[in-house]
Amino acid sequence: MGGGKPDSRVLDYLSSAGADSKIIQYDVLGSQAHVLMLYKKGIIPRDDARRILDALADVWRKRSSIASATRSKSTGYGNAEDIHEFVELFVIERAGIESGGRIHAARSRNDQVATDIRMKIRDDINEICGRLLDVAESMIMLGYGHCKTIMPLYTHMQQAQVGLFSHWLLAHVDALLRDYDRLCDVFGRVNMSPLGAGPVGGTSLPIDRQYTAKLLGFDGLVENSLDATSTRDFAAEYASAVSIMMSNISRIAEDLVVWSTSEFSFVELEDCIASPSSAMPQKKNPDILEVTRAKSFESAGCLASILGIVGGLASGYGRDLQQLKPILWQVSDIGSSALFAMYSVFGGLYVDKARMRRVAQSSDLISLDVAEKLVIASNVPFRTAHAVAASLARHAHDVKKPVRKLAMSEIKKAIKGMDATGVDAQDLCDILSTLGAVSSLRNRLSRGSSGYAEQTRMLADRKKRIADLRGDNDIRVKRILGAFDSLQKQARHV
Amino acid sequence: MGGGKPDSRVLDYLSSAGADSKIIQYDVLGSQAHVLMLYKKGIIPRDDARRILDALADVWRKRSSIASATRSKSTGYGNAEDIHEFVELFVIERAGIESGGRIHAARSRNDQVATDIRMKIRDDINEICGRLLDVAESMIMLGYGHCKTIMPLYTHMQQAQVGLFSHWLLAHVDALLRDYDRLCDVFGRVNMSPLGAGPVGGTSLPIDRQYTAKLLGFDGLVENSLDATSTRDFAAEYASAVSIMMSNISRIAEDLVVWSTSEFSFVELEDCIASPSSAMPQKKNPDILEVTRAKSFESAGCLASILGIVGGLASGYGRDLQQLKPILWQVSDIGSSALFAMYSVFGGLYVDKARMRRVAQSSDLISLDVAEKLVIASNVPFRTAHAVAASLARHAHDVKKPVRKLAMSEIKKAIKGMDATGVDAQDLCDILSTLGAVSSLRNRLSRGSSGYAEQTRMLADRKKRIADLRGDNDIRVKRILGAFDSLQKQARHV
Amino acid sequence: MGGGKPDSRVLDYLSSAGADSKIIQYDVLGSQAHVLMLYKKGIIPRDDARRILDALADVWRKRSSIASATRSKSTGYGNAEDIHEFVELFVIERAGIESGGRIHAARSRNDQVATDIRMKIRDDINEICGRLLDVAESMIMLGYGHCKTIMPLYTHMQQAQVGLFSHWLLAHVDALLRDYDRLCDVFGRVNMSPLGAGPVGGTSLPIDRQYTAKLLGFDGLVENSLDATSTRDFAAEYASAVSIMMSNISRIAEDLVVWSTSEFSFVELEDCIASPSSAMPQKKNPDILEVTRAKSFESAGCLASILGIVGGLASGYGRDLQQLKPILWQVSDIGSSALFAMYSVFGGLYVDKARMRRVAQSSDLISLDVAEKLVIASNVPFRTAHAVAASLARHAHDVKKPVRKLAMSEIKKAIKGMDATGVDAQDLCDILSTLGAVSSLRNRLSRGSSGYAEQTRMLADRKKRIADLRGDNDIRVKRILGAFDSLQKQARHV
Amino acid sequence: MGGGKPDSRVLDYLSSAGADSKIIQYDVLGSQAHVLMLYKKGIIPRDDARRILDALADVWRKRSSIASATRSKSTGYGNAEDIHEFVELFVIERAGIESGGRIHAARSRNDQVATDIRMKIRDDINEICGRLLDVAESMIMLGYGHCKTIMPLYTHMQQAQVGLFSHWLLAHVDALLRDYDRLCDVFGRVNMSPLGAGPVGGTSLPIDRQYTAKLLGFDGLVENSLDATSTRDFAAEYASAVSIMMSNISRIAEDLVVWSTSEFSFVELEDCIASPSSAMPQKKNPDILEVTRAKSFESAGCLASILGIVGGLASGYGRDLQQLKPILWQVSDIGSSALFAMYSVFGGLYVDKARMRRVAQSSDLISLDVAEKLVIASNVPFRTAHAVAASLARHAHDVKKPVRKLAMSEIKKAIKGMDATGVDAQDLCDILSTLGAVSSLRNRLSRGSSGYAEQTRMLADRKKRIADLRGDNDIRVKRILGAFDSLQKQARHV
Repeated sequence: MGGGKPDSRVLDYLSSAGADSKIIQYDVLGSQAHVLMLYKKGIIPRDDARRILDALADVWRKRSSIASATRSKSTGYGNAEDIHEFVELFVIERAGIESGGRIHAARSRNDQVATDIRMKIRDDINEICGRLLDVAESMIMLGYGHCKTIMPLYTHMQQAQVGLFSHWLLAHVDALLRDYDRLCDVFGRVNMSPLGAGPVGGTSLPIDRQYTAKLLGFDGLVENSLDATSTRDFAAEYASAVSIMMSNISRIAEDLVVWSTSEFSFVELEDCIASPSSAMPQKKNPDILEVTRAKSFESAGCLASILGIVGGLASGYGRDLQQLKPILWQVSDIGSSALFAMYSVFGGLYVDKARMRRVAQSSDLISLDVAEKLVIASNVPFRTAHAVAASLARHAHDVKKPVRKLAMSEIKKAIKGMDATGVDAQDLCDILSTLGAVSSLRNRLSRGSSGYAEQTRMLADRKKRIADLRGDNDIRVKRILGAFDSLQKQARHV
Repeated sequence: MGGGKPDSRVLDYLSSAGADSKIIQYDVLGSQAHVLMLYKKGIIPRDDARRILDALADVWRKRSSIASATRSKSTGYGNAEDIHEFVELFVIERAGIESGGRIHAARSRNDQVATDIRMKIRDDINEICGRLLDVAESMIMLGYGHCKTIMPLYTHMQQAQVGLFSHWLLAHVDALLRDYDRLCDVFGRVNMSPLGAGPVGGTSLPIDRQYTAKLLGFDGLVENSLDATSTRDFAAEYASAVSIMMSNISRIAEDLVVWSTSEFSFVELEDCIASPSSAMPQKKNPDILEVTRAKSFESAGCLASILGIVGGLASGYGRDLQQLKPILWQVSDIGSSALFAMYSVFGGLYVDKARMRRVAQSSDLISLDVAEKLVIASNVPFRTAHAVAASLARHAHDVKKPVRKLAMSEIKKAIKGMDATGVDAQDLCDILSTLGAVSSLRNRLSRGSSGYAEQTRMLADRKKRIADLRGDNDIRVKRILGAFDSLQKQARHV
Repeated sequence: MGGGKPDSRVLDYLSSAGADSKIIQYDVLGSQAHVLMLYKKGIIPRDDARRILDALADVWRKRSSIASATRSKSTGYGNAEDIHEFVELFVIERAGIESGGRIHAARSRNDQVATDIRMKIRDDINEICGRLLDVAESMIMLGYGHCKTIMPLYTHMQQAQVGLFSHWLLAHVDALLRDYDRLCDVFGRVNMSPLGAGPVGGTSLPIDRQYTAKLLGFDGLVENSLDATSTRDFAAEYASAVSIMMSNISRIAEDLVVWSTSEFSFVELEDCIASPSSAMPQKKNPDILEVTRAKSFESAGCLASILGIVGGLASGYGRDLQQLKPILWQVSDIGSSALFAMYSVFGGLYVDKARMRRVAQSSDLISLDVAEKLVIASNVPFRTAHAVAASLARHAHDVKKPVRKLAMSEIKKAIKGMDATGVDAQDLCDILSTLGAVSSLRNRLSRGSSGYAEQTRMLADRKKRIADLRGDNDIRVKRILGAFDSLQKQARHV
Repeated sequence: MGGGKPDSRVLDYLSSAGADSKIIQYDVLGSQAHVLMLYKKGIIPRDDARRILDALADVWRKRSSIASATRSKSTGYGNAEDIHEFVELFVIERAGIESGGRIHAARSRNDQVATDIRMKIRDDINEICGRLLDVAESMIMLGYGHCKTIMPLYTHMQQAQVGLFSHWLLAHVDALLRDYDRLCDVFGRVNMSPLGAGPVGGTSLPIDRQYTAKLLGFDGLVENSLDATSTRDFAAEYASAVSIMMSNISRIAEDLVVWSTSEFSFVELEDCIASPSSAMPQKKNPDILEVTRAKSFESAGCLASILGIVGGLASGYGRDLQQLKPILWQVSDIGSSALFAMYSVFGGLYVDKARMRRVAQSSDLISLDVAEKLVIASNVPFRTAHAVAASLARHAHDVKKPVRKLAMSEIKKAIKGMDATGVDAQDLCDILSTLGAVSSLRNRLSRGSSGYAEQTRMLADRKKRIADLRGDNDIRVKRILGAFDSLQKQARHV
């Protein structure tokens, strides 16, 4: 049936030029590997391969200017519908149809684009992992300076126990390290090659998919050709991992926003990262933390879009999948920039130790310590000890004194009627005399607790773990770069 | 300030009784391990431990009736606010305050609930993994019967290449196996013990967290006590993994819904899983597939809720986290029931081989094969070969013949003006005479392609892989059961 | 092809019995109206109609026990697949096939279920609207007691301007009133009748759709039969409106959680709605607010599920739509219970006026007032006046005095080098002497500002508006009840 | 505490320059209105006002170049943090500090940005409404050509009843018209002025908020100053309305994708909007529909992000809100471009009437008609009639004949054992002889059905309704333009 040329606004609607500007380099690398394989398998003669590779080297050199020309959708690829066609047309123009016309044998845009996206995401993962380790490391360094900084720990935003600021830092470091693990797991599933899967069902040409996979630094194949071209589960998984990381980061941001209020005044952002109010010198807006918090929900929205797009989609490549590209790039931007922001935050965070300590100490957070002392020292059942401690606390509250300052007479009054518990007022008095924030934290010895000893141990342990992970990440990065170096070398020596 | 008793509707609003009914057993197990540890560490004397363990054994025996009594929020826990308090009160009542009052030493509801949830989710993961392998296995078995069942493969829902039905099955099996991997990764991060973290900052009692972890079959600790009680990143991760699995499953469902239409008529659900229309015998509604598709979006909505709830939440346990429980149970139900539904589908799927073949063959899906033949046989550049094949196809379309039936004169007409390509009409004629769906699939040898040979290889390979994973899953299940057996034994021998 | 009976687990998977238990009453009402219409149009003879209506009256009487029997999926409808079939079978059994067999003429389950859902949602909207007005009214009443309660207003959680607590209340009342408007708009689109649309394309029987619509209290028809049975856009719209309302409510909750901290201590929840900690009398967990905050994200997740399910769904009823029912009921529960929770909160909220005032006054929030005074009194450009005020504030900050307490010499020092501004130290001194929280609020006269005068005006205005809306809502409720009364009357008099 | 200058990457992280480029014009208009009001109220002298307005006129003239300079974040605003500061600095530079320094009296960036966003969204709504009417109108026009085009109507994607293509078009037109209504409701809540609310609590300067509101074409005020600066519920509502519209559109897209398959072959997109495959002339990829379907989920993801960002946010402007801007612009782009795409689709859709009719007629979709005939003609209870029709259909299915072609002997066999029903074979035979697709559609007279008569009525009715709405939309657009004209006039005559 009839036709006519497509409307430019329709073309614009369908175009992925903006998103494609970020995968030109991967398209060229993938094309180089593909051509090397075709040559090795005798599908392309040496001279043709040579000419194609020269043309590709030319695209490589011009990749930045091509990218910026294509970022705005209207210009860009000329007659080419997308970056893949653009590169092929460029190669045909340079190398001639007789040579350049051979580049697209045994591949299709469907396996190409999947390859490009996977190559980009694995790089993004590595970058995010590196930045994540930067943040974790800066938190550990800060923690070393605050492993004696007493502060209240909160549940329900209510003061609950005395703790140390390093403990808070370590808690969030541990969350970040789980995020790291998660991203590594995603990396494992992303770094598989779909190249050579063809449009959907493979090819009759005698290709070697393992060879291109190796040239491109992939760890293996997405074997099934229908699966290789259709699946984007790795995209959802990547967006999940980043969204979970962002939700962990947003919790850091939330705590710091609250602690930056005049009412808390636990921390203050340095001017270089805060937005001080010119008219109100005491006011410093924690915009960087607010933006980070918001980005966490942007990321979750991206994930929702991805799951929506792929859910219930028929098998085989569909153009719906194209819309995933800009969303994925956004996910990467969010994760990467938010980590940089947090790195800046921990580099410019003033912690008001004195204030934290004062609040912690004035808040009389020793009921649990009292109860546990009774359990240990007087063999009182915990629930009974807890009732006694609660009674003391209520009485202290009523007489407006700290628990520790209760006189013997007051203690007696407080536990009146609790004789059955067998708790002795003198014992209580002795216990109270020894208690305080410092002793509480000295006695807090349970694994992973916020006591002094555990801080020292955990800081050293995490510091070492971060260093180890840094090594792993570097290896992962180098393996890819190494593959690319070797690819270039082989490309030059055809 | 003033008070009064809470309104029952407010209590109902705050209650988690319904959700708690599913973790009673875990709460008892966790309590047993905790008491054994307290006894071992000398924090509870033997006789008290004995009495507590007896009382817990009693709760264990009654767990079902407790669960069903508490499922409806209004009745249930009596004065207890939640399952944790309920169990403690029960123990105190049975064992007396002097013994039972000791159970809650060195723990809080905050680490308890985190422990219970993790124990439930690891069981849910194992169950889902088992069902997933059932589905995958049934697909492989079906695949063996259809590794010669020719059908069209689609891109954009348009016929694109000839393929085999087993290839479609294998594609989705591979997706499911990635889901399996993902769930295993989640398992690794879920199966860590938060028990002993206390309310937020740990305890001064000399507990042994590794010991309780081991008793409960955990692989390690969520060490930091603030992290252990606050984090629910594992919940988001679990919901992500299930949502991604569901989106993979929903794609299977979508294909089968479309293929069940009269217009496609590729498959038919057996009556036992379809909803036949009494008035229209030719009509069978694929309700089971539609419901499955919808459940995929329910799961994604659950994930959105979880990421929303935990995003930007202050550190330390907050009651917001309680709302995650029913959502997580729903995620488990969705994943588990949908896999069962798919298992039923593949057990009751009639595949109309003849129809699939007829459609595939009548659709003339050999353009790519023609082009590749020209590349191999006549050393024509692929792009040129592609143009020739396209020209033949257009001409065939115009004269309403299959490409393979074009006469020499028609071939000549079709490639008129393409002399520069060097393609010879006689060569083309020879190529066409050898081509067809069967030869196409015989020649399709590339790794992971839909050719005959690859089907055989992949079916055997995946069959073996599924068997291996089944072994792994069994081991994982047995390790937990083994820990529980040993826990019971120790509990009985105090 | 072969069959066999459906597996009970498959039936369970497909069943909507649990969700259906909430629409039995609507199904009966819809059936009554349908039968009256069929009778009126001569499609059912009088005696048959009579018998059917008697049977329906019987279902109506037993609706509660049917609902509770069917809530657990396994039992319930016996051979009936859903509530619609159940009611029909019940009617046939009671009235005999010759009469009862006539009930289903000219309708299908597709238009029936759409009718039932719409009837339930319009009731839910009316209930939510009523509760919303309760909350708004209680906030206004509280506001009357706090229209002189000075407090800091915040931006970025940083103190920004002096304000009044009533202003905060009024801000959130206005948001709630927009939610009310939005729900009314949804009501308008929900309250249209799909009944009589048939399975998808209408019927050849001479029905009167306007008549059943009127009998059921609908405002009109969802006319197009394909649209009437397929669309669930009203479901997404309803979930949106509730989710937006919940996000407004969650902002109230967030403020109150933060203000409940020891560090802020602006408000305290009464014991009857808080969860006081037994061991720490100073600690009161704002669980009711935290749960409310979480519910806001649950609601957003429900909306995400709905948009996912309906997005990209083929026209015509599909079983995917069934899954919307429980999600919608959950949306209603969330909205309704959260409003009740907020009503309880505002009924049990202790506001520490003294503390609020002390914090506001000690925080020196008068820079903007200084600048505006300069603009008015000395005709200084605002930007210049702002710079002068900022300079004063910085100087005061440095010398650790409130701005108002700056001595003339200090003022001079502060504005040194600002001669060009033409601001005179004496003028400044005069201005400062007149400023303070009270005068600031007295001068704050702009429309909708937090000044004293505007509070009085707005409180009265909103009080009246709420009363008006209450009237509207009552009318809406009564119109439906009136229709039902009339329906029953007609049903009895056939 | 210490400081230093902000890192440029931090500034970039915080910058909203990209998003701001789309609201420059609104910022200028808002500033003009504000200055006119300040002048009218005597807060700014005439000469100063004159100079400011001249400077603003200059910004207006340069708005495009400013926008494109600022679109890339790095350059752009120079020292200004955002567009609001940029405009003020520009004015101060042009008009001098003595005049230009007066522009920011009685406003803050918090009310400014809320004003700008509302002005942009109301324009976006009007544009979307206009395009929506274009699509609806083109569907009606197409419908006129297809009100006799017989096709199957589907439920569960299974053929269910005979219908007409115009009916399908009208169903989706009705959905679009509800979207129109919804957008109008949103417009009503968006088109309220927050200008003059100040940073959070209003101002002591004697401003006139109603006056600026009127100058800017707003319908009223967002009165409460805290509410006016904090709330973004209108943003969530707008995104909801667009997302619901997109889900309606995506259902159109889904149907057309399926109908474009070779297997259905009901419709074909013209080449100018399809992506024909060069190698497979029979294949035309419906990319435009696939992209549209994906955009529906992008929009839902945007909504999820918005609800996440605003949920649980403390009162008073927070920088989190800045992140809403680009999301909102994306929502507008999605809605607007998708409507244009659909307009193109309906302008280039080839409908294969013959094929539709052939499929409809060969599918024997007359069971319901048979049953209804029995109800009318023979006074048989519907359920009984339905059983008879089903029996006929099953028998016809078995003997592989259309129901209408059943011989008397076959009819008798089919209803054997159904004597109790009182249905007579001869009656049935007579009924069958009169039935067929055409007669079915002639008899389908129920309101909103897919019968012939209703098509004619509904097409005319909707055509008129669209014209009426077009008028309303034009009025709404003109009212805003009129306000702006008048604003410019007043600005020139100060």
